[in-house]
Amino acid sequence: MSSIAMPEPDPRVLARAAEITAALRAVLPDDAVISDLEETRAYECDALTAYRCPPLAVVLPRTTAEVAAAMRICHDLRVPVVPRGAGTSLAGGALPTADCVVIGTMRLRDVLEIDTRNRFIRVQTGVTNLSVSAELEPHGFFYAPDPSSQLACTIAGNIAMNSGGAHCLKYGVTTNNLLGATVVLTTGEVIELGGPEMAPMGLDLMGLLCGSEGQLGIVTEATLKILPRPEGARPVLIGFDDAEVAGECVARIIRSGVLPVAIEYMDEPCLRAVEAFANAGYPKCAAVLIVEVEGAPEEIAFQIARVREIADALNPVEFRESRNADDAAAIWKGRKSAFGAMGRLGDYICLDGTVPVGQLPYTLKMIGELSRQHGLEVANVFHAGDGNMHPLILFNANKPGDLERAEAFGADILRLCVRVGGCLTGEHGVGIEKRDLMGDQYDPADLAVQMEVKDVFDPRWLLNPAKVFPLPASQPYRERAAAE
Amino acid sequence: MSSIAMPEPDPRVLARAAEITAALRAVLPDDAVISDLEETRAYECDALTAYRCPPLAVVLPRTTAEVAAAMRICHDLRVPVVPRGAGTSLAGGALPTADCVVIGTMRLRDVLEIDTRNRFIRVQTGVTNLSVSAELEPHGFFYAPDPSSQLACTIAGNIAMNSGGAHCLKYGVTTNNLLGATVVLTTGEVIELGGPEMAPMGLDLMGLLCGSEGQLGIVTEATLKILPRPEGARPVLIGFDDAEVAGECVARIIRSGVLPVAIEYMDEPCLRAVEAFANAGYPKCAAVLIVEVEGAPEEIAFQIARVREIADALNPVEFRESRNADDAAAIWKGRKSAFGAMGRLGDYICLDGTVPVGQLPYTLKMIGELSRQHGLEVANVFHAGDGNMHPLILFNANKPGDLERAEAFGADILRLCVRVGGCLTGEHGVGIEKRDLMGDQYDPADLAVQMEVKDVFDPRWLLNPAKVFPLPASQPYRERAAAE
Repeated sequence: MSSIAMPEPDPRVLARAAEITAALRAVLPDDAVISDLEETRAYECDALTAYRCPPLAVVLPRTTAEVAAAMRICHDLRVPVVPRGAGTSLAGGALPTADCVVIGTMRLRDVLEIDTRNRFIRVQTGVTNLSVSAELEPHGFFYAPDPSSQLACTIAGNIAMNSGGAHCLKYGVTTNNLLGATVVLTTGEVIELGGPEMAPMGLDLMGLLCGSEGQLGIVTEATLKILPRPEGARPVLIGFDDAEVAGECVARIIRSGVLPVAIEYMDEPCLRAVEAFANAGYPKCAAVLIVEVEGAPEEIAFQIARVREIADALNPVEFRESRNADDAAAIWKGRKSAFGAMGRLGDYICLDGTVPVGQLPYTLKMIGELSRQHGLEVANVFHAGDGNMHPLILFNANKPGDLERAEAFGADILRLCVRVGGCLTGEHGVGIEKRDLMGDQYDPADLAVQMEVKDVFDPRWLLNPAKVFPLPASQPYRERAAAE
Repeated sequence: MSSIAMPEPDPRVLARAAEITAALRAVLPDDAVISDLEETRAYECDALTAYRCPPLAVVLPRTTAEVAAAMRICHDLRVPVVPRGAGTSLAGGALPTADCVVIGTMRLRDVLEIDTRNRFIRVQTGVTNLSVSAELEPHGFFYAPDPSSQLACTIAGNIAMNSGGAHCLKYGVTTNNLLGATVVLTTGEVIELGGPEMAPMGLDLMGLLCGSEGQLGIVTEATLKILPRPEGARPVLIGFDDAEVAGECVARIIRSGVLPVAIEYMDEPCLRAVEAFANAGYPKCAAVLIVEVEGAPEEIAFQIARVREIADALNPVEFRESRNADDAAAIWKGRKSAFGAMGRLGDYICLDGTVPVGQLPYTLKMIGELSRQHGLEVANVFHAGDGNMHPLILFNANKPGDLERAEAFGADILRLCVRVGGCLTGEHGVGIEKRDLMGDQYDPADLAVQMEVKDVFDPRWLLNPAKVFPLPASQPYRERAAAE
């Protein structure tokens, strides 16, 4: 992966920056444009902190019209635009380039409409994921996608990355919960897609938009599907002394037709770290599953009985039911502290690949072998029900060459995911991180069609540059755009 | 809606037809090309039989390679291509033009792979919807989308129209159940989208493809999500003496969090026709709901108790539970014969709009008023749980002007759906039928973006011509394509 150069204090660059900020300030409120280097530095990276680059300027609009005005100016002046939600991307999806303007959605914070009868909420997209559900709580509803970063991440970012979360096994990811969107195109033109009860007609641009990582436009308002809050939820913990058998248990639960809201998997290295950190009281074994079911009390009891039946046939080390809220919290405690626990062991890279559920046991075994080959430890904690793996590769950032080794190991794991029939990303997106692996997933013809579609929305190739598509593949498009 | 002219026996047309069929025969098996006028006549219409036009020729390939060869020739000779599944479209989605080649998928009938562990089936797209579930039955699985035409309709057509069915309330429509696709582009190039465990990466072309009505390419192979067959299913029948209250009952069931597999609605004119035809023993009242739930016996009992609680609060005329398979069949009997029963009353047009569930009562009332204004009877029988309405407008095909009046009435109903926040089609697609209403749903800018995307896939505008997009809106694209 190539690093991106810091901007030189070149007078031409400074003049360009001055021209652009003056044009932006002419049409936007004063406090909406940030160009001071000290202040723009806050936007130099997202949660993939290994890569940093301050932008030329940052725009923080409060309305769709302001986003449109900023986009129009950037288009006219041919300035690259990097859209940004809360900057929680683990794939570098909001990493600036030195010549770009960042357009952030964080001030688009209004809740526009709640309609429980027709089951939707309409919001500006700078509202955070968690605050959407908080708004809905008094009405007895919730919004299903729940990425781990939900306290901070915005709906704009969720749409751009098609975010999932622990509960997406039952409720799907963002694309399954997004009903409508107001989109600002690169020219500043505003289009409306979908709506509360819109089956897509003609071409489904909404599906295309969701997960497009800021390549097509900026979503400023969204209509989201909301669901009645279930009466209750209950986790069970199942320990196995064989990682492969734990994988088999996941496959059998899925196959049985029981649909838990979450099936989380922790392997032995993860369990060790979690015990040392959080004293979660998990069994000492090769793998632990946490299976959570929800519904009315009768539904919960029925589903847990089914899960127990399936697990018992596989001789678990332990099957622990939660009888009350304290038990439930104790079961989740270790899982929720897993990333923190890993952080104490050293630096880590968190990967995000998917594999067919039936391939989980084989994939886990092969990751172990790759770990030995690369000489780096790996821990696995992930959403097993939908095969979305998050291997954590541990390395030492202060040891020269260790980051590169960890990245090479990570790339091998992702290629493994592709080889067994899965893909490079389940919910984090491609961003800058997996851009150069897209060729492992897609044939040149498949990628070309994607880039042709991108080209329709962004013929000048200004939106979120240098992401998603491998640079050699996108070069002809960018050259043609630059020559026009 | 403008009719499409029959082909003249013009010598230039005949020469053109001869040129095209010769080119096709040069690369395809002999029996794969049909050009005899008597034989091509079988393809002159789909289930929207009011419009007919025999094509120049019909190609019936058996492999992806043969589809690609035919597409390449049509592209090179600039011949329009009308893709066709089983020809069951109610929107004229497979209506030929006089200068086109129909490429039918009905001989692409192989089941390629069944993988219950990873829960998918891979098929050629000429297999019928019902035969997919039949293939899966011995394995204890099924494929969820189940359009009424499932005995005849093909997976190719289901993907093109994003088909639903009675059970889509719980399991979603085709786009929620399609994992991967092999697509032949207009140039004959073949691309692969998705796969068994593929979260979309980069741009979600699969979402774009699904429901694109043959505008982007022809899907020759598909990987479909399969689900474990539930242990059982049970319908209940609920009668109300007020149509609005029946609509309220639907909204409350949905809001409660119970998720039936189907909620079907029949109004009084429909009930009358059904009783006269099938003697179903339904109560005489303003509206009947059939609510079907499924799962293990405990789950079924729990869900029915909930539905009863909700219904009882609304004073139903009758709440009839099914105790066994015979009861269940009796409850479904009238609903299943509804379209046949209507057919006995006269000719009808079956519409397909959606509205927010909360707008059902108002929409039903307004349809009644429009019925009086247009002087034509209408009956309502539809999938109420997701607000997908199918008003049947009765008319007399032998009475001059009656079809036109029925079409005008239908257009008014669809505009009503748009006005209350719904849309022009839930599952039948736009086709030729709703092409000229797209401007009621979409702003010019929204439509332009759709056509730009179409233009990427089909720059010569050869694929399924004169459908989906209003002709005046698409004219500049078609003229540019013709001039090149």
